[in-house]
Amino acid sequence: MAIRLGILGYGNLARGIECAVKQNDDMELKAVFTRRAPESVKTLSGVPVFSVDDIEGKKDDIDVLMLCGGSATDLPEQTPKYAKLFNVVDSFDTHARIPEHFANVDEAAKSADKTAMISVGWDPGMFSLNRLYANAILRDGNDYTFWGKGVSQGHSDAIRRIDGVKNAKQYTIPVEESLKKVRNSENPELTTRQKHTRECFVVAEDGADLKRIENEIKTMPNYFADYDTTVHFISEEELERDHAGIPHGGFVIRTGKTGMNKEHNHVIEYSLKLDSNPEFTSCVLVAYARAVYRMNERGAYGCKTVFDVAPADLSPMSPGEMRAKLL
Amino acid sequence: MAIRLGILGYGNLARGIECAVKQNDDMELKAVFTRRAPESVKTLSGVPVFSVDDIEGKKDDIDVLMLCGGSATDLPEQTPKYAKLFNVVDSFDTHARIPEHFANVDEAAKSADKTAMISVGWDPGMFSLNRLYANAILRDGNDYTFWGKGVSQGHSDAIRRIDGVKNAKQYTIPVEESLKKVRNSENPELTTRQKHTRECFVVAEDGADLKRIENEIKTMPNYFADYDTTVHFISEEELERDHAGIPHGGFVIRTGKTGMNKEHNHVIEYSLKLDSNPEFTSCVLVAYARAVYRMNERGAYGCKTVFDVAPADLSPMSPGEMRAKLL
Repeated sequence: MAIRLGILGYGNLARGIECAVKQNDDMELKAVFTRRAPESVKTLSGVPVFSVDDIEGKKDDIDVLMLCGGSATDLPEQTPKYAKLFNVVDSFDTHARIPEHFANVDEAAKSADKTAMISVGWDPGMFSLNRLYANAILRDGNDYTFWGKGVSQGHSDAIRRIDGVKNAKQYTIPVEESLKKVRNSENPELTTRQKHTRECFVVAEDGADLKRIENEIKTMPNYFADYDTTVHFISEEELERDHAGIPHGGFVIRTGKTGMNKEHNHVIEYSLKLDSNPEFTSCVLVAYARAVYRMNERGAYGCKTVFDVAPADLSPMSPGEMRAKLL
Repeated sequence: MAIRLGILGYGNLARGIECAVKQNDDMELKAVFTRRAPESVKTLSGVPVFSVDDIEGKKDDIDVLMLCGGSATDLPEQTPKYAKLFNVVDSFDTHARIPEHFANVDEAAKSADKTAMISVGWDPGMFSLNRLYANAILRDGNDYTFWGKGVSQGHSDAIRRIDGVKNAKQYTIPVEESLKKVRNSENPELTTRQKHTRECFVVAEDGADLKRIENEIKTMPNYFADYDTTVHFISEEELERDHAGIPHGGFVIRTGKTGMNKEHNHVIEYSLKLDSNPEFTSCVLVAYARAVYRMNERGAYGCKTVFDVAPADLSPMSPGEMRAKLL
């Protein structure tokens, strides 16, 4: 029997899950729950849409509920709440608040014999896993994470709030020179500016002062002031034609030394190059839904992260098949 | 209290474990066991050396026994044998015989409530893990594994067996052009020749027929005939000066498609660049020794592979510290 998934919150991530479920024979998408009027939500796959107010009544039809809300305000409230009713997976990505989120979710899930997986995706998620594996192997070394080339929604939004800006897209780009030093085991100490550059494609309103807009972007504290930033003014048509996608990616690198006299250098590198950030994230979420289901069946209750999941639990293959084909 | 390790078989891998233990505060190396005369074995760290005949008497002094024998004849016999007395870790790397080895070791370990981890290292090992993770995430895609640049012991040995050859070192090198196609989501079907080239550094005996040696290398079935092979004749001094190390590495790449119409491409890449193949492998073995110890304490008996180990079990950090620092 297929693992029955539900989705709470219908946006890019939810659409990604709809696509991913189609690629996983052992999964079935049963329902989408929304805070909007259900009839106003049109899903890609035609899966039924219900009001979130009716979610408790569907408790027995859903094996794992995929929480697709945002990390700022939705998930801190939703994940503990729904972990009392469902096994859940979320993509909570506010790194600094993970310990607090974990504690809240753990208590809720344990009280109801549910399994709740938080902070799933690629960072946190696959990047975290690679940091852990690489640190466990190379005990004496340095960690580096670079993001991009990819679209930062937060930075694009920040540009759009500037007076005279109609639309904008911002790309975060790793500094190739620094990547090269890291891969070369030079163990550089890198400033913010040395790790990433920012490239902005901006559609200005007719007659807007482009010099002022460019200056406001480049000097914006936190978002751009500490980076080398390039600003290109383009037409709305160009933005739609050349910058419609949501690509992303990045690199997790650990370099370390071994040997009686630390005479040998090693480089472990994990990288992602993604055409669609939300669709890839959704694929990770769906793989972890499989693990959540299996772990709950085995009585592994409470809050879990990617660190707690044996890789075998992510795969639809049998253990014997895995050993024969992938080991 | 530290986890007490023993080593069976004192070669490059064992020396790597000696080095790795120094970098892990929670580990202690208690003894080396050898089939040779113990007094003839000089360890790097001064750890005591015993005859393998005395190993059973040391049963209670060792938490995990690291099996450092070869995959061809040592491990198929040793791992099941010692899994009846110790928790063990091996680096069995004959991919085709893993299912059979697993079955033998599983029966032995279960009969004695021991935990036995087989096929640990980087391939099988870290590369296998990355194949599994990437396959669980990108369900519709292609897998590629490239090895090198690195020294192949087997190919170096094959050259040394040729008449007129004093010494030799062979490097396996991935074909850059093919790597580029894979990373570019072109999903090429690659022949043996298109994946790797082979570069040989050969010290010939005085007066040997170099043309004949070169021809024998390049036409050697299985080892070289299916590859583009380059042969360089150098002096013994050059070989010692420029080719003394045992570097290796490689790339595991999975490319896949997502989206309702498979319109988005994704590339997951894991790579290693290692100055010392045996020392890096040993670091992986030691991390998995930690997991074996913990899993045995929890009653997880029988044969395990890297697929069965929750990443958290590899790390000396507490779960809370891991979540705060690595997630």
